[in-house]
Amino acid sequence: MYAQLIALDWGTTSLRAYRLGADGQVLEQRSLACGVMQLPTGGGTVAGHATESGFELAFDEACGDWLQAQPGLPVIACGMVGSAQGWVQAPYCPTPARVADLSQAMIRVQTLAGAGLHIVPGVIQHSRLPNVMRGEETQVLGLLQSLPIDTRDETLLVGLPGSHSKWVKLAAGCITHFDTFMTGELYAAACAHTILGRTQEPGGAFDGAAFDQGVAVALSSDGDIGPLSTLFSARTLGLTDQLSGAAQPDYLSGLLIGHELRSLAEVLRARNKSAALPEVVLIGSDALCERYHRALHACGFPCVNVAAQATERGLWSLALAAGLVSL
Amino acid sequence: MYAQLIALDWGTTSLRAYRLGADGQVLEQRSLACGVMQLPTGGGTVAGHATESGFELAFDEACGDWLQAQPGLPVIACGMVGSAQGWVQAPYCPTPARVADLSQAMIRVQTLAGAGLHIVPGVIQHSRLPNVMRGEETQVLGLLQSLPIDTRDETLLVGLPGSHSKWVKLAAGCITHFDTFMTGELYAAACAHTILGRTQEPGGAFDGAAFDQGVAVALSSDGDIGPLSTLFSARTLGLTDQLSGAAQPDYLSGLLIGHELRSLAEVLRARNKSAALPEVVLIGSDALCERYHRALHACGFPCVNVAAQATERGLWSLALAAGLVSL
Repeated sequence: MYAQLIALDWGTTSLRAYRLGADGQVLEQRSLACGVMQLPTGGGTVAGHATESGFELAFDEACGDWLQAQPGLPVIACGMVGSAQGWVQAPYCPTPARVADLSQAMIRVQTLAGAGLHIVPGVIQHSRLPNVMRGEETQVLGLLQSLPIDTRDETLLVGLPGSHSKWVKLAAGCITHFDTFMTGELYAAACAHTILGRTQEPGGAFDGAAFDQGVAVALSSDGDIGPLSTLFSARTLGLTDQLSGAAQPDYLSGLLIGHELRSLAEVLRARNKSAALPEVVLIGSDALCERYHRALHACGFPCVNVAAQATERGLWSLALAAGLVSL
Repeated sequence: MYAQLIALDWGTTSLRAYRLGADGQVLEQRSLACGVMQLPTGGGTVAGHATESGFELAFDEACGDWLQAQPGLPVIACGMVGSAQGWVQAPYCPTPARVADLSQAMIRVQTLAGAGLHIVPGVIQHSRLPNVMRGEETQVLGLLQSLPIDTRDETLLVGLPGSHSKWVKLAAGCITHFDTFMTGELYAAACAHTILGRTQEPGGAFDGAAFDQGVAVALSSDGDIGPLSTLFSARTLGLTDQLSGAAQPDYLSGLLIGHELRSLAEVLRARNKSAALPEVVLIGSDALCERYHRALHACGFPCVNVAAQATERGLWSLALAAGLVSL
């Protein structure tokens, strides 16, 4: 079947490539370990041209054959490929941002193989403490396309757990506000590079009870003192034989995610001037979404759904808005 | 001058040795890089006996000559040397703990050179989230000895900044409660092992303005969202040219210390059922005490003093209470 678009989700560590047909249907997909921070090195040849560029080589590996089979196919990419460390910098669009804003601000790169690559900009929020994202904006807009058309103007909170989790408010089809938590990256650093890792026995299956215990501590009055202090309990509960080494990683994960959601709920209540918490849609890996789902439930968020195929849908709708493809 | 006691402050990374005369006067002191986690390896000879023990070798290096010159001198040590990873485990004393409790619970090790080494136990608080310390209890009790005798029964808050900062409440000459914050160790992990380090230019002189800016953010309404989120501003203020790479390390330091003190102040106010914050005495390195002094002031703590020679004084008073020395 003929494709209409090649869509790339090009992040820090991985590059996912999609060949999309009519209506954005996924015809084929690939995943390569060619993120912006681990590009191919040593040079090579692309379409008969010698090149030292890791971006050219990774691009060719991801979709060179697709382009050869169907020359002239439009290509679109989101993620860190548009950052200062990326192929070409696609400057951030400010909030409020909608599909039209992002599609108009895409940056075109001419590749060695002759294809034009359209890079989606990230989004910046010029709050007193500024906030930025790259890639998540595309996922959020893809989610929007998957909603029933008469609900797309409603206000929605989208959670994107990861190294840096993002909490994005959608209103009237527009990204109006977002927050970042470095929970995932701090968790990894605490396990690998602090005393907490020394008593952990990692590698076991997910320990839901230990995770829930960590969440409960963060949400309890014991959590009032904040994560910089409660973290130490992952060690002291071990020293006092109340938490096994095997349970410590998931306890710590629950503790940190619990603190993230407790703080998020507090600022949402203050911003919305309401004790009620909004419904949440999660976008992310199954394993992370399961953790956040449990913790959101414990924290009192009323309804949590998980969205699929958000990136492909977002890239398709941006390509549509830019006129790269048509319905 | 004849000594009365050899006192060792034997921590994770360093070993400080003091030769103390009458009234605990410091006659001589040494600092060795022979902490519990970096003991001499490869074996050696102590007092004519071959040994593989890194503890014996470090002990000999620290005070073997002092003991040879004055055989039979009592020796006392505090810190991680009494932990599970130490020479001999000196089980924790529970709170409330005073000098008499700790001196009675010391553990004696017979060394190869013939000396008896008395190891001070740490302190454990059996709260729902347990808390432990080793070494800080000795410093706090040493501080107590330096206070005018008619004030030693007053309630006092002692701050011991470090990799793990401790906040210890003294009441009626007794350690009644304490909290731990992993601020220092998390700061080091965040700088060395997260994206925040990538844009930092470390190595400059202390940037007080950047530090104070970080503290102010943590204490402001922007800090309501907690450290897991505000941390990211060390990056985004850089991306938006509002914070230089050289200023980022001290901004981050101020941000984390500010969050620590904000949380501490909140729990103190709740525990004491009073908006008033207590006076604080700090024990620690000059550089860290300067940072905490600035941040405590910004946070509204009324009066902050810095104590000197707390460890030597604490070891002396514990040796006195145990009858190892006399007045």
